[in-house]
Amino acid sequence: MKHIHTGLMTVVEVGINTHQEPLVYMHKDCHVCVAEGFTAASRVQVTQEDRSLIATLNVVGNGFLAPGQIGLSDIAKHQLGVQAGDKVKVTHAPVVNSLAAVRKKVHGNTLSEFEMGEILKDISQHRYRDIEISSFLSVCAGGRLNPDEIIGLTRAMVACGKTLDWPGCPRIFDKHCIGGVPGNRTTPLVVSIVSAAGHMIPKTSSRAITSPAGTADTMEALMNVELTLGEMRRVVTDTGGCLVWGGAVNLSPADDLLILIERALDLDGDGQLIASVLSKKIAAGSTHVVIDIPVGETAKVRTLSAANYLAAMFADVGEACGIHVRCVITDGSRPVGTGIGPVQEAHDLLGVLRCDPQAPADLRQRALALAANVLDMAENQGMSEAMAKATYILESGAAWEQFQRIAVAQGGLKALSQARFSATERATRRGRLQSIDNRKLARLAKLAGAPRQPVAGLRLHCNVGDTLDRDDEIFTLYSNSEGEGDYAMEYYRQNRDMFIFE
Amino acid sequence: MKHIHTGLMTVVEVGINTHQEPLVYMHKDCHVCVAEGFTAASRVQVTQEDRSLIATLNVVGNGFLAPGQIGLSDIAKHQLGVQAGDKVKVTHAPVVNSLAAVRKKVHGNTLSEFEMGEILKDISQHRYRDIEISSFLSVCAGGRLNPDEIIGLTRAMVACGKTLDWPGCPRIFDKHCIGGVPGNRTTPLVVSIVSAAGHMIPKTSSRAITSPAGTADTMEALMNVELTLGEMRRVVTDTGGCLVWGGAVNLSPADDLLILIERALDLDGDGQLIASVLSKKIAAGSTHVVIDIPVGETAKVRTLSAANYLAAMFADVGEACGIHVRCVITDGSRPVGTGIGPVQEAHDLLGVLRCDPQAPADLRQRALALAANVLDMAENQGMSEAMAKATYILESGAAWEQFQRIAVAQGGLKALSQARFSATERATRRGRLQSIDNRKLARLAKLAGAPRQPVAGLRLHCNVGDTLDRDDEIFTLYSNSEGEGDYAMEYYRQNRDMFIFE
Repeated sequence: MKHIHTGLMTVVEVGINTHQEPLVYMHKDCHVCVAEGFTAASRVQVTQEDRSLIATLNVVGNGFLAPGQIGLSDIAKHQLGVQAGDKVKVTHAPVVNSLAAVRKKVHGNTLSEFEMGEILKDISQHRYRDIEISSFLSVCAGGRLNPDEIIGLTRAMVACGKTLDWPGCPRIFDKHCIGGVPGNRTTPLVVSIVSAAGHMIPKTSSRAITSPAGTADTMEALMNVELTLGEMRRVVTDTGGCLVWGGAVNLSPADDLLILIERALDLDGDGQLIASVLSKKIAAGSTHVVIDIPVGETAKVRTLSAANYLAAMFADVGEACGIHVRCVITDGSRPVGTGIGPVQEAHDLLGVLRCDPQAPADLRQRALALAANVLDMAENQGMSEAMAKATYILESGAAWEQFQRIAVAQGGLKALSQARFSATERATRRGRLQSIDNRKLARLAKLAGAPRQPVAGLRLHCNVGDTLDRDDEIFTLYSNSEGEGDYAMEYYRQNRDMFIFE
Repeated sequence: MKHIHTGLMTVVEVGINTHQEPLVYMHKDCHVCVAEGFTAASRVQVTQEDRSLIATLNVVGNGFLAPGQIGLSDIAKHQLGVQAGDKVKVTHAPVVNSLAAVRKKVHGNTLSEFEMGEILKDISQHRYRDIEISSFLSVCAGGRLNPDEIIGLTRAMVACGKTLDWPGCPRIFDKHCIGGVPGNRTTPLVVSIVSAAGHMIPKTSSRAITSPAGTADTMEALMNVELTLGEMRRVVTDTGGCLVWGGAVNLSPADDLLILIERALDLDGDGQLIASVLSKKIAAGSTHVVIDIPVGETAKVRTLSAANYLAAMFADVGEACGIHVRCVITDGSRPVGTGIGPVQEAHDLLGVLRCDPQAPADLRQRALALAANVLDMAENQGMSEAMAKATYILESGAAWEQFQRIAVAQGGLKALSQARFSATERATRRGRLQSIDNRKLARLAKLAGAPRQPVAGLRLHCNVGDTLDRDDEIFTLYSNSEGEGDYAMEYYRQNRDMFIFE
């Protein structure tokens, strides 16, 4: 049963974009398929010199590949770093031992920090299939991680990525919102105010998981957010702050892969959330972080007791991992600001920074309160003092100047694009707007194309408590393709109860 | 924002086998992609006349597709029933409402029978992505389904498939083993004995989920098991029994799709197991079923208390669904028989049926005990009477005749193939075999290619309790490709503790 080496395979260009999952294509009569016993959906290892990749095999009949040739999906080609004409070796994928730990968790057992570390290491090295990541995420959601497991997961996420340190700066600040409230884009305002006050706040943000825009998506409408770790360090050293996408600086690569599947599943588990947030803060070198937890019937956190529980978990996990966490529980019962989706939210942000009297007052007020909490952690002069200082920084134009300074350091402030299509929905009768369903509103904006299409989304012309006359505008929907606009409006017509009028 | 119909797309042959997941391929510059806002991993609906299919999109650059053309993976083409040259319409996939119920379960809530029904209906109509099925299975595993949910799941599985009835036959029998013990292939023996005794036993079996062979895999080495529902009815009417693959008769199509993902995840949840087993018995029209639950440290069920719990759940769910269930708890501490893998197990079966003195006595004894339990349910004369009758039927050759009659009715008894490669492992010193790890042994046989390659697997030359001298044979490994044989033996060398010698 001696192994006869079956030779190398030649990479050919197939140009198939499979999104995040690495796939390879081989001919069904390929000698390697036959000799190794590969069939469709086999897991294989593709090796070139000292680099290798694990991928799922799709078997191809006569068509675009001949026996002896191998096609790699775009992500697979990118990860392995090969080009057409290169020679690669294809073997059975090694057994992924950490999957035994995933099955252990599926069966209701708890995982050690070591096991979490092994799982995250294998995920960050692309050894898991999407269905395996899905299984892991699902059994870690719904409160199924205990505090020790969340601590283990947090440390595991930090361990498999890069970390930043800031020599000579003993206190590094950060701010995060757990999300769930459309339009609640306070981060860029807080970063501008806090760094204008002279404190260091190296902010990395995520793209949307289940929402129509993450902070990174919104900031990308205004400036380049895909910085390298070195560029990020330079921007923070120069300005005291930054507004970059965490995925690009690779602070938590395993978490970035988890997030891709979470987004596809429209899922966002508690323990995973805490670990995801804190691991990125720790990796960025932060020592003090303010976390905004909005509470509302249709927000991510629905009750005050759930918010308090989450806040306690954040504090406990933070303490175990050496970072000070202050949670601020805020109103998540209604959207904040008027824009939803990257470009629409960016309009609101610019309005607040420029002290435009038309700018949404609720967004301004919330950003000031959160900035004050960071300043209070930093300066310890009490909240009213901190609030006065934050307000002065915003009203004096110092925050706007600071925002522009950061934008310039990141490559310059961009002009906002316009959507190709829009549709405005009007009230059919007079009535008071009693409630808005955040989840359905977010879904509406997503179906219009947000955040993939930055200009897609919507602009609210009213908010909870407002009284509208017949024909008053409720919202305008923006999209960049007719199909998406139609699709979103069809969803709206089937879910008009997202706006309840008395 | 009026929708302009962008016309139809032309199906072209791409011949890509993606296993179970429907994928479609479109050019990145395709007018439909652009107009509808499709990107890689978008979920799309492909429609031809009144038939439609939901699939995941892969976007293709210049290569095997031009704009306006669409390629379908083999399973997608098969499901939609289209051919090259056909015109299809491609739109956004509709929102799959039952996914909200899956998320509800992810978050720890229980599901109603209605919700289970909606989930299973959507799965059976191929509306779920693999990651979504994976999520559902994972949060239903590990004891996370309560009895009502298992009842709901069972009924939902029955409701979305075909069912059989047997007019004039008030009592229909069945037998099932939950698995986990390599080589434990009693079903064909029980079916032969019970039907030889004049009772009707329309047995459908599954293919392997996590094991090196399911009964259907083993039977396929000996006869055609892919019968239509009509053919199955004829075989049972003619002979009183049958040995067919349940997947081909489509008694539980949603479950068949779940099993594909379970197999890929190497996962087998309790509630899902109960529903899967009972739904197929109910759909086959059975009224009385004996279920074999092997217990052992490395079997599927590890403790007697877990076995008793499972037995009680089987009985309760059976009662709620109108089927009499008797569970028999058996020894799962060591492999049964000597062959592992379809062809190797078939050799053991033929030996027992032919009353070959070399045939494994443990397999024979276990099959007799299970057949006696069915006969006792059928005839109510007590277990010792039933055991005597089962033994007589086997020893008189009546069971072997009956087995051949069934094989002929299913198309004829096949000759067994030989593996191309084999390797025999021998003891390195004298010692008593203290234990065998069923899971690792099963994995070894699977890595050799079982059950995909029917001849792959292994033959044990010893069992727990035997004393071996130096150079005595432990096992022979069979494979049909060198790669698989090498891969399996490499796993063995890293896991020699699957055999523990004193």
